[in-house]
Amino acid sequence: MGSAALLACDWGTTNLRVWTLDEAGAVVADRDFPGLGVSKLKPGEAEARFRDEVRPALGAEGLPAILCGMVGSNLGWTLAPYADAPADLEDLARCLKTVEGADWVRIVPGVRWGGFNGQGDVMRGEETQLFGWLAADPARSRGRRLICHPGTHAKWMLVEDGRLTRFVTAMTGELFAVLKTYSVLKSDAAADDMAAFDAGVAAAGDGTALAARLFTARARVVGEGRPPEETPSYLSGLLIGAEAAAVPALLGCSGDEPLSLLGDARLCGLYARALAAQARSADLHDGEAAAVAGLFALYRKARP
Amino acid sequence: MGSAALLACDWGTTNLRVWTLDEAGAVVADRDFPGLGVSKLKPGEAEARFRDEVRPALGAEGLPAILCGMVGSNLGWTLAPYADAPADLEDLARCLKTVEGADWVRIVPGVRWGGFNGQGDVMRGEETQLFGWLAADPARSRGRRLICHPGTHAKWMLVEDGRLTRFVTAMTGELFAVLKTYSVLKSDAAADDMAAFDAGVAAAGDGTALAARLFTARARVVGEGRPPEETPSYLSGLLIGAEAAAVPALLGCSGDEPLSLLGDARLCGLYARALAAQARSADLHDGEAAAVAGLFALYRKARP
Repeated sequence: MGSAALLACDWGTTNLRVWTLDEAGAVVADRDFPGLGVSKLKPGEAEARFRDEVRPALGAEGLPAILCGMVGSNLGWTLAPYADAPADLEDLARCLKTVEGADWVRIVPGVRWGGFNGQGDVMRGEETQLFGWLAADPARSRGRRLICHPGTHAKWMLVEDGRLTRFVTAMTGELFAVLKTYSVLKSDAAADDMAAFDAGVAAAGDGTALAARLFTARARVVGEGRPPEETPSYLSGLLIGAEAAAVPALLGCSGDEPLSLLGDARLCGLYARALAAQARSADLHDGEAAAVAGLFALYRKARP
Repeated sequence: MGSAALLACDWGTTNLRVWTLDEAGAVVADRDFPGLGVSKLKPGEAEARFRDEVRPALGAEGLPAILCGMVGSNLGWTLAPYADAPADLEDLARCLKTVEGADWVRIVPGVRWGGFNGQGDVMRGEETQLFGWLAADPARSRGRRLICHPGTHAKWMLVEDGRLTRFVTAMTGELFAVLKTYSVLKSDAAADDMAAFDAGVAAAGDGTALAARLFTARARVVGEGRPPEETPSYLSGLLIGAEAAAVPALLGCSGDEPLSLLGDARLCGLYARALAAQARSADLHDGEAAAVAGLFALYRKARP
């Protein structure tokens, strides 16, 4: 492992994750700054807090830096306009946003697409993980494949010969959070009852009529006497199951494309479980390693 | 109009609505007690507050009373166990819960059904409106028809020869409220932009993959530059459209059954608009008149 040569940052809505990388892209150190999530920043303060807090904490004054995520939105540091899908790693590198200042700082643009129904779709951050994951194995850039990145706003991305051609966002994680916290389905119980999760996946059916299927989480308690502690697990299975059953068709996918789950290991495991119940297999990949690889690949393209 | 002979109450989660009726069932007076919604009651206080606040306010001390709605749940006055579907007006009358006390007081049971997917379904209050509406015209008790009662938890009820045989609940109104208040789609704008509502209905498509369709409400603003003030109207159209497109099939309905909307006039109008965009017609009926008719019909069955 060499000495730190680059600051790589995944700067999202709720957290800023920073890695220092050596000249070969290996991680030298890493650190989270949950207090610097974009939603917690005051307008205009991103640059100063990056300079005065992030760089010194990692001993990284003066290093080049590359940042992805919501930091490139109008709520972040500066607006990095979306690249348009279809897009590949080269397109993304060409669209890197230069931040004026003493140091070399670039922000990765998000990606925009017209959307499955013409209303548009957007991402910021997931594209970096996707292209990092693709770059790690040339075989992944051949043919047609579907990559799902679970989360607050889950992304389903169709890749054809290494290009991100279409994607759709499902706000499954956010639905889970607001229903678990504010609705008649609210509960403090943990979502760790796998039998109830599986019952929720089964109740998701083909993913139609979600508002009706959601009410079964209530009816099974008040009408059928199921324990209310099962509700969060059942709700999680229902939401993930409905997403997995219905979203691929929005991208024109038949269901037999190779499917990979990329992201948080626990969440990817839940998606794999729901998919298995629907007779669909998927391989699992670590989102953090992919983010580092993507940021490094973009850095190398932009500053060879 | 005669003198008051009966207190008829629709006592729900957020409001208590009371009518005094004469011996022929005509409304003599009415009053709302929003402070007495079941969710605002302390355990055990329903009886005393009904006696000490509701009866005196309407000069109705000593009158017989009949109550429907969440007042019959374990959070209300006393538990009125569900009647099981299939059920008709006679079945409901037989299951009226007697409240012990000096006065004649009966609580209408809700209705329970096994549910479209075996997880169960329940209602409390809508059954009274349904049977009041059916009682108003004998032709309504012939053949097979679908009645939708929009609301926080919308009910779709299949009636066959005057019997409620199956029903399904869609938590569309609650989804709208929690998403409008707490999610990335939150907005203070009014949901009165009919062009945006229609765009939402179109985006609902066939009602699959709701979590993905919901994100288009965000993407059209951040990716396509649509005014954020349109979001509540678009969201309303999307949720109602997805419900209307997909819920009838859960009841085994083909889509060509006669369809009636029963409830709040404004909300019924939105549903009719969404249904029309899906080439489905529906007739509209006032829920309050139906509630009064249902309470009176049940009273006459129980105390001829």
